[in-house]
Amino acid sequence: MKEFDLIKHFFTKQPVKHKEVVLGIGDDCAVIAPIENQNIVVTTDTLVAGVHFPLDTSPRAIGHKSVAVNLSDIAAMGAAPSWISLALTLPEVDEIWLKEFCAGVFDLCEFYNVELIGGDTTQGPLSITITAQGVTPKDSYLTRSGASKGDWLYVTGELGDAALALQHIFGNVEVESNNFTTIKNKLDFPKPRVLAGQIIREYASSAIDLSDGLVADLGHICQASNVGANIALDALPLSVILRDSLLIEDAMNLALSGGDDYELLFTVSEDNKIGLETALSHAGISVTCIGQTNASQTISTTLNNKSVTIKTTGFEHFA
Amino acid sequence: MKEFDLIKHFFTKQPVKHKEVVLGIGDDCAVIAPIENQNIVVTTDTLVAGVHFPLDTSPRAIGHKSVAVNLSDIAAMGAAPSWISLALTLPEVDEIWLKEFCAGVFDLCEFYNVELIGGDTTQGPLSITITAQGVTPKDSYLTRSGASKGDWLYVTGELGDAALALQHIFGNVEVESNNFTTIKNKLDFPKPRVLAGQIIREYASSAIDLSDGLVADLGHICQASNVGANIALDALPLSVILRDSLLIEDAMNLALSGGDDYELLFTVSEDNKIGLETALSHAGISVTCIGQTNASQTISTTLNNKSVTIKTTGFEHFA
Repeated sequence: MKEFDLIKHFFTKQPVKHKEVVLGIGDDCAVIAPIENQNIVVTTDTLVAGVHFPLDTSPRAIGHKSVAVNLSDIAAMGAAPSWISLALTLPEVDEIWLKEFCAGVFDLCEFYNVELIGGDTTQGPLSITITAQGVTPKDSYLTRSGASKGDWLYVTGELGDAALALQHIFGNVEVESNNFTTIKNKLDFPKPRVLAGQIIREYASSAIDLSDGLVADLGHICQASNVGANIALDALPLSVILRDSLLIEDAMNLALSGGDDYELLFTVSEDNKIGLETALSHAGISVTCIGQTNASQTISTTLNNKSVTIKTTGFEHFA
Repeated sequence: MKEFDLIKHFFTKQPVKHKEVVLGIGDDCAVIAPIENQNIVVTTDTLVAGVHFPLDTSPRAIGHKSVAVNLSDIAAMGAAPSWISLALTLPEVDEIWLKEFCAGVFDLCEFYNVELIGGDTTQGPLSITITAQGVTPKDSYLTRSGASKGDWLYVTGELGDAALALQHIFGNVEVESNNFTTIKNKLDFPKPRVLAGQIIREYASSAIDLSDGLVADLGHICQASNVGANIALDALPLSVILRDSLLIEDAMNLALSGGDDYELLFTVSEDNKIGLETALSHAGISVTCIGQTNASQTISTTLNNKSVTIKTTGFEHFA
């Protein structure tokens, strides 16, 4: 087990020193000195090899994605990510693998000024659990439960590309080689919407990050907020690659039910709509209004303002 | 994967509501409102089935131990445990197993007023990662690095019983049946030294919790503090069961190198020795002075004030 202790050295060369971290890696605990008038947000996500990513995923992508899915949760609260703890379970010590994994972790940490404050390395089947923490001004954060009926429904970016990449890997869909490189990159190196989250914090009534798929995650907002919602299918932001690779109905299906997008889904009141769109536009962040919440207890879909029923079981969700 | 979402319901019936937790389980993140003039300490520990506990360990013990090993790290900093995040990876959903596991987690959380604020449940080989957090008054916490040469070396409780239980399980040692029940309980249900940690915070110069074994963990203090240390073997606190089950040399060996004790090891200056002993005695906490730090760069052992060499490889460490 000695060699597992040695792994620790890989994690001490990290690039970031966060001002609130008094004591970082190396003791029984890290020590944080929180700044006054702030809230701290905390999230934990586990990625298991073969469940949350294909077994042949590159170690750099695994490192990146492990951090990204957690920062995506931080972003959905409107918080700024600050520090993470990393629990890494590995079948064996492979220095090349570890170096690449660490590069994936640290590149993203450096980009968002996130400090690795500690963790644990153990022997076992490959899995990664990260606990990420972030900060917001006191009493200023987004939840899933703040939507009111009549709020507008928005998503950042485009939906379905990561799921398309997975379907290609499973052999269910043909994707042209250059296009596959592009969407595989979206699957392996998702970009958490950290800036968008902090901008919409001032305007949105509720938010969630898209990890399970649009309909499933919208369901979480609806349930927590006690509202229903309608999605205008013709408004769904689909990439050119997704449109070119599938029939439009299958493309919509994937945008509705495919997971791993790590975009933000959020609601905004009529009063805040213009302010929100202006603020995001100034930051160069592309968002799309895809529908509206309502007083029903269901999620419905329309196409050209006509009610349609979409079967979202056409593709099996990898996770 | 739906049934794994259902697991969440097991974790919503938790007993504790911590005053600093503004938003608990159920959103993308939990939200903490830290009290002024406090530090927050953070630790993460993973237990992997078959590596950190025998495969046939009861789910209640696994739940208890997963929390206990983390609270032990919090205790070693002199902090009060406050909230935890739980990442549980399970091969399958077994309601009876989960109910027992949760009982183990929640009984300990309730005892120490610790709130479960979130986590993740995933499918895969059984493993548990907990991130525990605690609070201390600002700038008041213990580390591994504060020992000076000439400080006295103390441990709480008795050493080696958990390791003896493991050796019996492995068939290496005979232990009488009633005695085995007692020490198996120490292995499965370690009691983190939460109160002791907060008391010694005012007196100790350094501290660590004993998870890897006395010599290994003392090594961490010595390395971080740049001191050496001598252990007086005749002072080692050995239980009657340990003395009765083994030759004295083997008993000492297990106390030196066996892991899983989850007692605290700490150093205290000559000036603080009486104050510390008095404070702990008032709280009914048994501690033993087992040696002293020195200016060497090594860990030595003496028996009746005579230098002896102990082979600490007689028993293989399970973890």
